Amino acid sequence: MNDISVATAASSERLSATYLVETRYPLEAAAAAMAGEQSSGTFRAIPGETAELLRRFGARVEFIEDITDVGEEALPFSRPPKNAAAATPRRARVGLSWNIENTGTVLASVWSTVLGNLFELHHFSAMRLLDVSFPDVFADAYPGPAFAVEGTRRLTGVEGRPLIGTIVKPSVGLSPQETAALADTLIAAGIDFIKDDELMGDPPHSPFEQRFEAVMAVIDRHADRSGRKVMYAANISGDVDAMRRQLDLIGSRGGTCAMLVLNSVGLSGVVEMRQHSAVPLHGHRAGWGLFSRSPDLGMSYLAYQKFWRLAGIDHMHVNGLSNKFCEQDETVMASAHACLTTMFGRADRPDTVMPVFSSGQTAVQAGETRDRLGSNDFIYCCGGGIMAHPGGPAAGVQSLHDAFDAAAAGIPARDYAANHPELEAALQAFG
Amino acid sequence: MNDISVATAASSERLSATYLVETRYPLEAAAAAMAGEQSSGTFRAIPGETAELLRRFGARVEFIEDITDVGEEALPFSRPPKNAAAATPRRARVGLSWNIENTGTVLASVWSTVLGNLFELHHFSAMRLLDVSFPDVFADAYPGPAFAVEGTRRLTGVEGRPLIGTIVKPSVGLSPQETAALADTLIAAGIDFIKDDELMGDPPHSPFEQRFEAVMAVIDRHADRSGRKVMYAANISGDVDAMRRQLDLIGSRGGTCAMLVLNSVGLSGVVEMRQHSAVPLHGHRAGWGLFSRSPDLGMSYLAYQKFWRLAGIDHMHVNGLSNKFCEQDETVMASAHACLTTMFGRADRPDTVMPVFSSGQTAVQAGETRDRLGSNDFIYCCGGGIMAHPGGPAAGVQSLHDAFDAAAAGIPARDYAANHPELEAALQAFG
Repeated sequence: MNDISVATAASSERLSATYLVETRYPLEAAAAAMAGEQSSGTFRAIPGETAELLRRFGARVEFIEDITDVGEEALPFSRPPKNAAAATPRRARVGLSWNIENTGTVLASVWSTVLGNLFELHHFSAMRLLDVSFPDVFADAYPGPAFAVEGTRRLTGVEGRPLIGTIVKPSVGLSPQETAALADTLIAAGIDFIKDDELMGDPPHSPFEQRFEAVMAVIDRHADRSGRKVMYAANISGDVDAMRRQLDLIGSRGGTCAMLVLNSVGLSGVVEMRQHSAVPLHGHRAGWGLFSRSPDLGMSYLAYQKFWRLAGIDHMHVNGLSNKFCEQDETVMASAHACLTTMFGRADRPDTVMPVFSSGQTAVQAGETRDRLGSNDFIYCCGGGIMAHPGGPAAGVQSLHDAFDAAAAGIPARDYAANHPELEAALQAFG
Repeated sequence: MNDISVATAASSERLSATYLVETRYPLEAAAAAMAGEQSSGTFRAIPGETAELLRRFGARVEFIEDITDVGEEALPFSRPPKNAAAATPRRARVGLSWNIENTGTVLASVWSTVLGNLFELHHFSAMRLLDVSFPDVFADAYPGPAFAVEGTRRLTGVEGRPLIGTIVKPSVGLSPQETAALADTLIAAGIDFIKDDELMGDPPHSPFEQRFEAVMAVIDRHADRSGRKVMYAANISGDVDAMRRQLDLIGSRGGTCAMLVLNSVGLSGVVEMRQHSAVPLHGHRAGWGLFSRSPDLGMSYLAYQKFWRLAGIDHMHVNGLSNKFCEQDETVMASAHACLTTMFGRADRPDTVMPVFSSGQTAVQAGETRDRLGSNDFIYCCGGGIMAHPGGPAAGVQSLHDAFDAAAAGIPARDYAANHPELEAALQAFG
C-alpha cells in the first residue's frame, strides 16, 4: 500500500496535500491540471485569470515523484492526451500547495480544495489523497479534541494500560432493558468501555433516551460499588436537533461519551457537536471502505483522520490486527500511529486522538497490538473475545489484562499463560 | 455501467437496497454475510441472537441475480471461502431489505445500515450500492425539498424553458467587487442563475458577507429595471453556526438561494440547514468521484441523490453531456432523470429536485440535453459557453435561448441557426 509512509510537502503557511496519481499525460501537464482545477483555473483560459491572480491564488505544484510505468490503466474513462493515444500510463506522487487565502480556515473549503473534482479529472486513471498538511492557523480556528487520551483516562480512571472495551451485540434488536442487562454482565466482568453498534441509533424498539437511561442506571450502580465509572459511547448520530438533545441528556445524566458516525454526520455536523459537547466524542468510521477499499481511488486514513481531529473527535476507529474485514495489518497499525502523532506539535494544544481497535479482537492479538503501537494509549474492543471466553466474560476480560501485562513486561504471551489460566484458555480458544 | 437501469426490491414498509457484488463465495453465503453484518448478526453466533430476534430484525435477502463469472477479482484483499481457493469470482445483484424498526426514520441510521461496513467485508472483491428505496414513513419524517422546480421558477420568474446559469470564474481570487462586476456583465447578458464555485466559501480575500452584499446590490439594480431577480446560489458550506448566520443574511437581504457542498457538510448538516432555510438549497456534489469513479466500488447517483433529496436539497448537480470530466453521457442523463423521478409519488408532497448541468456546456449540447431529458425543468450552467462566445456574453446567452427554442420546436440546431446568428456563431465556435 502506498498509504503508509508519505513525506508531506509541509509548510507552516500553506495548505498542502500529496496524491498518488496515474496518467497518460506528461506528469508536469497532469500536475498542472490538478493545480488549475483546484484553484484559479478552469478548462480554458479566461479573462479574469490574470498573472497576478494566478501568482497569488493558483495552486503550486510542489513536487512530482515519478514512480513507475504501469501496463494497464487502473480506473476506466480517462482520456489520453491528443496525439499521444499510445502513451504508457505512469504512476507518480504529486505534491500541491495552496495559499491559505484561498480557503481561509473553513474546514469545508479545505475539503473542496484538496478533494473536490480531482477524482473526476479525465487526465487520471488513479487518484488518491495520501496526506494533507494544515497550516498552524487551523489550530487556532478549530479547538480539536477536548478529551482524547488524557481526558478519557481521567473519566474512566484507567491508567498505565489500554482501555478494554466492547460493542453491544446483537447490533440491533435488543430492548433497552436487554441492552442494560448485557451491560450489567460486561461491567461485572470488569470492562472499561462499552459502545453502541453504529446500526443502533434511536429506533422504535430501543429509543435513545430509554436505552441510555437503562444503561446509565447499571453503570451508576457498579460505580457506587467500585468507584469506577464505565464509559458508555452512546450513538447519537442523527439530525442536529436530536443530537443536541441527546448530548444534553448525556451531560445532565452524568454520561461520559457520545458516538458519532463520521461519514453520515459530516464535517459540519461534527464541528457543531464538538461545540455543544461536554463529553468525549467517539468517532466511528462506518463507510470507510468507500474511501479505502480501492488502492487506486479515495484517500488514506492518514489524511482522513486529520479532518475529524480538527473537527474535534476524541476517539477514532482503526480496525484491528487479523481483523475480520479485508484490511491488512500494516495499514491498521499505520492508522493507529497516525492517531497518536501530533498535527501541530504545540504543547498548549494537545491534538492526538485515541485509536480504537475492534473487529474480531481477542487476547491473541492484544500483546502484538500494544507492541506494534509502542503505547498503552488505545481502546481495545472485543466482542466474542470476552463473551465467548470458555471461562465466561470475567475470564475474557482477565485474559486481556494478562495479555497486556505480558506485553508490558516483554514476556511472550505463551510463556505468561503458563501461570495465567484465563490467558491460557483464551489462546487455546481463539488462537 | 450497471448503475443505469435497476429494478429495486421495493416495498412500502421495509427499507430496501440493491447491490452489485463480486465474490468467490457461493452467492447465497455471500448475500447472507451482507445481511448478517448489516443487521443483527456478527462474525460468530452470539447468545442474544435468538430466532425471534433474527426473524424480526435480521436483514432479509430479497433476491440474488447471478450475472456472470469474471476472470479476475476487481478489488484486492478479499479472501476465498475455506477449501475453495480456486473458486471463480462471480458477479451478481443482491437485494436486501430491513424492518423499519431497525433504523426508525433516522437518516444517519439508514446510511449506516445500507452502506456501513459492507465495503470492507472480506467476502467481496466488488461492492456497489445501486439503489435504495425508502418506505413511505420517511416522507413524513423528512420534509424534502421546499422549492425544487416549481419554487425555483417562482423565484426567478422563468417559465416554459430551462434556466440559464453560470458559475463565477476564476473560482478563487476575485474580490467581492470583482465578483459583483462579473455578475453585472452576466446579468446584463440575460442570465437567470449565478453561483459561487465550490472552492469559494468565506476566505479573507472575499468574505462571504461582503461578496454576497456586493452581488445582491447588482442583482437588485437589474431587478429594478427588468422586474426579474436573478438567483444567486451563494456558497455557505462551512460550520453550522456560520452557515446559519449566512442563511439569515440571505433571507433578510432578499437573496433567493444558498449552495451546500453536500459531501463536506454531511447529511446532518444539510438537514439542519433545511430546517433553517427560507430559500432553495443548491446541492453541489464536489468529491462525487470518490463514490463513483470506480465501477467496482461506491454507489450509484440514483442511490446518492435520494439521501440528499430527503434531507431537503432543491437542486442537484449532474455534470453535463460531453463534459470535461470522465463521466459518460449515459450516466449523466440517468442522474438527471433520477432527479426528476418522484420518490414517494404523493400529490401532497412533491419530492423531485431540479437537475443542474455544468462542465464545458455550450449551445452545442443544449438541445440534446433538453431532448434526452424530455423536460425543461433543469438549470443549464455555462462558463465559456457564455463568456467566450464570439459575440460576447449577451450573444452567448442568446445562443442558449436559440438552442432551447429549436429543441422545443423539434428543429435541428444546425437548421435553426440559419436565421439565428448567435446560435450559428456558437455552433461554429464550440462545435
